[in-house]
Amino acid sequence: MIEDTIPAVDVAGALEALRARRPLVQNITNYVAMTISANVLLALGASPAMVHALEEVEDFVAISDALVVNIGTLSPPWVEAMRRAILAANERRKPWVLDPVGCGATPYRTRVAAELAAFHPTVIRANASEIMSLAGATADGPKGVDSTAGSDDALVAARALARRTSSIVAVTGAVDYATDGVRVVRVAGGDAMMPLSTALGCSLSAVTAAFCAVADPLTAAVAALTVFGVAGAQAAQRCRGPGHLPAELCDALYAMDRATLDRFADATPAAA
Amino acid sequence: MIEDTIPAVDVAGALEALRARRPLVQNITNYVAMTISANVLLALGASPAMVHALEEVEDFVAISDALVVNIGTLSPPWVEAMRRAILAANERRKPWVLDPVGCGATPYRTRVAAELAAFHPTVIRANASEIMSLAGATADGPKGVDSTAGSDDALVAARALARRTSSIVAVTGAVDYATDGVRVVRVAGGDAMMPLSTALGCSLSAVTAAFCAVADPLTAAVAALTVFGVAGAQAAQRCRGPGHLPAELCDALYAMDRATLDRFADATPAAA
Amino acid sequence: MIEDTIPAVDVAGALEALRARRPLVQNITNYVAMTISANVLLALGASPAMVHALEEVEDFVAISDALVVNIGTLSPPWVEAMRRAILAANERRKPWVLDPVGCGATPYRTRVAAELAAFHPTVIRANASEIMSLAGATADGPKGVDSTAGSDDALVAARALARRTSSIVAVTGAVDYATDGVRVVRVAGGDAMMPLSTALGCSLSAVTAAFCAVADPLTAAVAALTVFGVAGAQAAQRCRGPGHLPAELCDALYAMDRATLDRFADATPAAA
Repeated sequence: MIEDTIPAVDVAGALEALRARRPLVQNITNYVAMTISANVLLALGASPAMVHALEEVEDFVAISDALVVNIGTLSPPWVEAMRRAILAANERRKPWVLDPVGCGATPYRTRVAAELAAFHPTVIRANASEIMSLAGATADGPKGVDSTAGSDDALVAARALARRTSSIVAVTGAVDYATDGVRVVRVAGGDAMMPLSTALGCSLSAVTAAFCAVADPLTAAVAALTVFGVAGAQAAQRCRGPGHLPAELCDALYAMDRATLDRFADATPAAA
Repeated sequence: MIEDTIPAVDVAGALEALRARRPLVQNITNYVAMTISANVLLALGASPAMVHALEEVEDFVAISDALVVNIGTLSPPWVEAMRRAILAANERRKPWVLDPVGCGATPYRTRVAAELAAFHPTVIRANASEIMSLAGATADGPKGVDSTAGSDDALVAARALARRTSSIVAVTGAVDYATDGVRVVRVAGGDAMMPLSTALGCSLSAVTAAFCAVADPLTAAVAALTVFGVAGAQAAQRCRGPGHLPAELCDALYAMDRATLDRFADATPAAA
Repeated sequence: MIEDTIPAVDVAGALEALRARRPLVQNITNYVAMTISANVLLALGASPAMVHALEEVEDFVAISDALVVNIGTLSPPWVEAMRRAILAANERRKPWVLDPVGCGATPYRTRVAAELAAFHPTVIRANASEIMSLAGATADGPKGVDSTAGSDDALVAARALARRTSSIVAVTGAVDYATDGVRVVRVAGGDAMMPLSTALGCSLSAVTAAFCAVADPLTAAVAALTVFGVAGAQAAQRCRGPGHLPAELCDALYAMDRATLDRFADATPAAA
């Protein structure tokens, strides 16, 4: 059962709520993704902070509106900060997003991703390879941290994972999906150039966390996928290569509004 | 007593001295700010280095012309590196700039900022919320790491802080101020889009350190605020959103010269 | 004995092989260089990963096609990760590139660079000051991490270093050289603006590692220098300052092809 995105979810309403609230999003993320994640959040209308010291991570969760945990450049001290932040977020019922970067590439990475997923993330956002690895689906496992599987292939795994962790699972690829384990929402958009600019997926996870501060988890995931997909498609049209894509993406997010979202929705064929 | 910037300080002269000297600026800064700080320093005409290992931090101070200490993504090993670098800088009478990012957001952050401020920074550069928190002024404290107070509100706190630490305090916001605790220099410039691109304030702190290598602290602070403000205003005019702002800012700093500074000074109304 | 690049090495063939293979390049690199290194590798057609945890670094070498080790922001835990990755790479006969950033600036940095160089890197890529320092050549030592010596001056040191470490040594500057200790290949290209954008040299080291996955070390070094030099020259022509240089460089690498390489080769005067 695959629903089409646009009629199902009020993406523009979620975006307006985000801008009115200007949520403070705490990022425990990888070194590569920090700058672009911060810029994407600022351009969209959220307030980013990168805080990971054990001495303050729980205090910061207390003043944040949402948390994103991304294991891209993990090491034991950072994983301990992730654990504490997640426990603090769960205790205070603050939403948090898990981005299990490279899950499946090494045993350590897979073990940490699985441990953190067991804390019931609000949303898990990953590519198809990572989702299949995290769900324990066999598959060949990812090659490095870039995906080698299509997001369609991962749908079965995503639904199983969503049911097991009580999370929304968002799988990104040529087409994106968000699922609560039963319903599946399909989101078109983006551009084939996006994987050629580093950490845009990580930035999408941060955007998902920002939307979780103002909407229910499935709406938040779909809103994040939609807004990011539309902005990515607009940005790619202004680029002749991936070099300026992050800057153009920020500009497109900054200018994103209901009219732009409506225009893209009209241009998108209804789901079969 | 508020003085106008442009007639008081020879900004163009300081810029020319900076380019002639090409100072080596050691940055112990946060992960988000590293790349843009390095690019801003290079574009301006300084030579950046990011060095934080306890095994070399003091040796590097010995060959540097100035130091910037920024607590944005602090953790205990980095704070220890900051302490050692600061002590080495003070011992060798090298100028150093403190950027107390997010001071007030958590007790740990406030404690570290206060401890480092007690080492008498040459300049403290921060937004209004951070300055008020660091000065022990009450206020509500910052929300995350973005400022919620105007720089005007922080002027009383800035002057008190400057007197207590024997530092120049530079407060940035819609309007910027530099004070030695008695005199206050007001600097216009910049653009409302600047806070929407991450770590530009951190980069301004790095620029301030570069100017400290070639000018007295108050002149250095005012020169940094002026050059950065003019470049930021020029950069924003070339942008339709914050995406390209860091690149345009670097280009504007690279092209900055006496004629450009004079043109902006003529266009700026004299202080009341 | 200095040979001219273009006739000696099939750069376009190496580039086509790289794109066909899409090598997974493991980066243990500095915080400043991570994002631009990843973007440069993606634009060129390789797959980057940043992995440094002791718990997984050897497992990741096993699935990677090449490794780059860059000491820019070194500290003891990172150096230990570098050691383990290098040993794993040597054991599995995977190529690896050493970038001894700032070698000579502090005793710690020089000591670590020399220790790692003793593990016989496939290629050592550095500026002239770093190469001379690493080779134990006297010279004045580098000022910070930017080079103060010309690449010509370093040629004697580079050949000695190459013979001692059984590495290809690539020295970059206004003109670039690659040597196996006997033969020396000279590569023109690049632009005087390139040193004004941070970490482009680090990114070139990552590109060199990518080429090592598909070509013999000398061919790989020359191909990397050539492709990067041509792309850098193209990128600089599209810039009025260094701000957009990283983005333009990525676009130029993305569009790089045999025709472009041939066009630049025809325009380059033959070596004397």
